Amino acid sequence: MAKTLIRNGVFVTATDEAPIVRGNMIIENDKIAYIGEQAPDPSETFDDIVDGARKLYMPGLVNTHGHAAMSLLRGYGDDLALQVWLQEKMWPNEAKFTGEDVRWGTLLSILEMLKGGTTAFVDMYDHMDEVARAVEQSGMRGCLTRGAIGHCPPDVQEMKRREAIQFARDWHGQADGRITTMMSPHAPYTCPPDFIEKFVEAAHELNLPMHTHMSETLFEVLENEKQYGLRPVDHLAKLGVFSRPCLVAHAVHLTDAEIETLRAHDVRVSHNPGSNLKLASGVARVPDLLKAGVLVSLGTDSAASNNNLDMFEEMRLAALIHKGVSGDPLAVPAREALKLGTANGARSIWLDGVGTLEAGSKADFIALDIDQAHFLPKSDYISHIVYSASAKDVTDVFVDGKQLVKDGECLTLDEERIKYEAQARFENLIGRD
Amino acid sequence: MAKTLIRNGVFVTATDEAPIVRGNMIIENDKIAYIGEQAPDPSETFDDIVDGARKLYMPGLVNTHGHAAMSLLRGYGDDLALQVWLQEKMWPNEAKFTGEDVRWGTLLSILEMLKGGTTAFVDMYDHMDEVARAVEQSGMRGCLTRGAIGHCPPDVQEMKRREAIQFARDWHGQADGRITTMMSPHAPYTCPPDFIEKFVEAAHELNLPMHTHMSETLFEVLENEKQYGLRPVDHLAKLGVFSRPCLVAHAVHLTDAEIETLRAHDVRVSHNPGSNLKLASGVARVPDLLKAGVLVSLGTDSAASNNNLDMFEEMRLAALIHKGVSGDPLAVPAREALKLGTANGARSIWLDGVGTLEAGSKADFIALDIDQAHFLPKSDYISHIVYSASAKDVTDVFVDGKQLVKDGECLTLDEERIKYEAQARFENLIGRD
Repeated sequence: MAKTLIRNGVFVTATDEAPIVRGNMIIENDKIAYIGEQAPDPSETFDDIVDGARKLYMPGLVNTHGHAAMSLLRGYGDDLALQVWLQEKMWPNEAKFTGEDVRWGTLLSILEMLKGGTTAFVDMYDHMDEVARAVEQSGMRGCLTRGAIGHCPPDVQEMKRREAIQFARDWHGQADGRITTMMSPHAPYTCPPDFIEKFVEAAHELNLPMHTHMSETLFEVLENEKQYGLRPVDHLAKLGVFSRPCLVAHAVHLTDAEIETLRAHDVRVSHNPGSNLKLASGVARVPDLLKAGVLVSLGTDSAASNNNLDMFEEMRLAALIHKGVSGDPLAVPAREALKLGTANGARSIWLDGVGTLEAGSKADFIALDIDQAHFLPKSDYISHIVYSASAKDVTDVFVDGKQLVKDGECLTLDEERIKYEAQARFENLIGRD
Repeated sequence: MAKTLIRNGVFVTATDEAPIVRGNMIIENDKIAYIGEQAPDPSETFDDIVDGARKLYMPGLVNTHGHAAMSLLRGYGDDLALQVWLQEKMWPNEAKFTGEDVRWGTLLSILEMLKGGTTAFVDMYDHMDEVARAVEQSGMRGCLTRGAIGHCPPDVQEMKRREAIQFARDWHGQADGRITTMMSPHAPYTCPPDFIEKFVEAAHELNLPMHTHMSETLFEVLENEKQYGLRPVDHLAKLGVFSRPCLVAHAVHLTDAEIETLRAHDVRVSHNPGSNLKLASGVARVPDLLKAGVLVSLGTDSAASNNNLDMFEEMRLAALIHKGVSGDPLAVPAREALKLGTANGARSIWLDGVGTLEAGSKADFIALDIDQAHFLPKSDYISHIVYSASAKDVTDVFVDGKQLVKDGECLTLDEERIKYEAQARFENLIGRD
C-alpha cells in the first residue's frame, strides 16, 4: 500500500464545510485518507513525506468541454469572421486530420492541460481510439466521446453511429476506470432529428450519458426555430436527449423557460467563457442558471478558439464577465468560480468522489507555488486562485494518487517529442492537399 | 559603449510595417541600433552575444493606470458590494498607510510587473517619494503622480496641492529620465471644481500632463450631471483639464458626443478591462473609441481590484470581451490588442521612442520562453501573445538597454525581502487601529 504524507500545507478543498484547511493530508493508494490539522501518530510510517510549505494544494481542475486535437490549429486564422474562419481555416484542415494528427494534437493539449493542473477533461472528436490511448498513457482522466456530425449520406451516418458505439463499448471504464464515455450527436444544427434519436437509443442501450453542443450562437437558435418550430432545448427534449443524463456545451442563448427545462431534467451545462467571447457568441446566463439550480461547470473548448487550455483563466473569466455584464459585483464570486472549475466539473461528468479534497475522495489534486508576488499578501487563497493564479503556477499534479507532474515536469509524457511532432504535423497538414 | 547582439530570434515589433521580424537585433547603450534579417559584419564586436532561439522578443508592456501600493490589500475583502468593499475594507486601511506601507506595497507590485514583462507604468497614489525611490531602484520607467482627493478642508486641500507640485518638481526627469510626472486631481466626483482648476493651473506652470479617473461607474456620471448639470467629459473640459495633454482612466460610460470631445482634445484613455469587470463597472466602448481615433491603452488598476498585474491578461481581456459583448468577432483583433499594451501605452504617457522594436527606439524589451505547448504550433505569434501567453512566460526584461530580469530572476530588487516585508506590513496594517 502506497502511503504519502503532505505536511505543513494550505489545502483549498472546494467544499462548503471547510473551504480552507491548514495542516496535513494523507494519501493511501488512490484516495485521500485524511485531511486536517492533526499530525499523524509518530508511529505511523509513510512511503513518502512531502513538505507542503510554500505550496497551495487544491483539487485538480476538470475541463468539461473540448476538442483536444484542434490544438494543432491554434492561432491559425484568428481574427476572421466566424464563417470564414470555420469554412476556410478549420473545416478544410480538420477534414484532412489523420489518426496521427489527432494523436499528436491531443497529446499537445494533454501536456498543456496536465502541466496546468487539469486532471480530467471531456473530449469530443474523431479518431477517438487515438485520444483514448493518449489519455491512458498520460495518467489523466478522460470522459471521451466520438462527436458525430449527421449532415451526410446515410451510409456515412451509419458508419459514424457504429464508430461511436464501438468506441464507447471498447473504452468505457478502461485505464483503471480513468476513461469513461458518452454518446454525442455534434449539435442540433448539424444533425437531423432521426440521427440524434439513434444516438439517444444507443445511450439507453449502453447506459451512457449524452453530450452535445447547444445554443452556442443566436443564429443557430433562430435557425432551429425556423426549421423545427422549436428552440434547441425543446427540440432536444422532444428527441429524448434529456431522457439520459446529459451534459450540454455552451448554452449561451437561453430563455427563462429553457433554463427551467434544463433544471427539471438535471441537464448539466459546460460554460465556455473564453471561447464564447473569442467567437463573439455572446455571454451565457450563468448567474441565472446557478440561481435556478442548474449544475454549471467550465470548459475551454478547443485551443483554436480560446487559445490556451488554462482552466484558471476560465474560472477567472467566469468570475469576471458576469459581474461586468450584469453590473452586479456579487455575481459568480470566487468561491463559486472555484467550484465550477473543480467539484461541479467532476459532478458534471459523473465522476464520483472527485473534485474536492476530503477524506475518502479520490486523490486527484494539484500543488501551486504560492511563494510569488501575485499570491501575496496571504489574505484569501480562494481569491488568489480565481483572480490571480494561472496554469503556470502549478508545480505538481496527482491523479488517483499517482504523481503525473513533479516540479513542473510531466512524468508520463515525452514533452520534447510531443512539441516536435505537433509542429511537424501542423506544417505537414497546412501543406497537404 | 555597451553593445549586445541577439541573434536567431523572433521579434514581434508592434509596428505596422514589419509586425514580425526573424533574425537579429543589436542594442547599443540604451537604444536598438538594428533589427532585421541581416547578420552583422563578422568584423563587428559585441560585449554580449545572446542566442535568441526558443525565445520571442517584444516591446516591454506599458501599464497606464494603477495604484501600486494597493497590492498590500490584494484579496482583502473581495466579492463584496462595491460600497461595502470601499467603505469597510479599502478606505479605512488605505487611510492607515504609512510611507513604509507604500514603499513595500509598491515594491511588491513593481516586482510582479517587472518579472511579468511590464517595463513602464503609471502610478497615482500618496507618499509618492517612496514610489519614485522604488522605481529608481528597480530600473523601470514610472509616470508618477500624487493623486489628490479634494473633498477635505481647505488647509488639507492646500497641503495636497503643494505636495503634488513639489513631487512633480522633485522627480520629473529623474532616474536618467525614467521618471516623469503628471498632475492628478483624483476624479470629478471626489474633487470640487475649483480644486481641479488649481491642478490644471499647476500643470500649465510645470508644463505637465493631467491624469484623472473619469466615468468609471454609471452612478458617478449621473451624480455629476445632477450636481453640475454636465456629464464628466464636458465638466472636465469646462474646468480646463483637456487644455493640457491628458490621460483619463476607465472612461466606461461615454456618449457618442463625449467620444468626439475626447478625440478633439486628443485625450488618451486608459482602458482597465479586468478592474471594470471585477468591480462591475461595465464594459467600456473601446471599439467605438478606436474607430473614432482616440488613443487607447491598457491599465491593470490596482491589485485590489484585478487581482494580478499581468498585462498579457489585460491585452487578452481587451481582445475577448469586446468581441463577446458586441457580437463582432473582428472587434479588437490581436494586432490591435498588442498595440494597446505596448506602442499605444508608451504614446499615452508621452514616452518618445518607446513601445516598438525598431532601429532608433529605446531598448525597452522583453523575452518570452516560447518552447512550451501553449505556443505551438508556430502559426501566429501575435495571436499566441494575446490569446495564449501570460506574465509567467517572461524570462528576460530590459529597460534602456539594461537587463533588469534574467532567466526569471529580478536583478535589481531583493525579491525575498520584498515578499517578507509585504506580508509583514499587511498583517501589521490589518491589526493596526
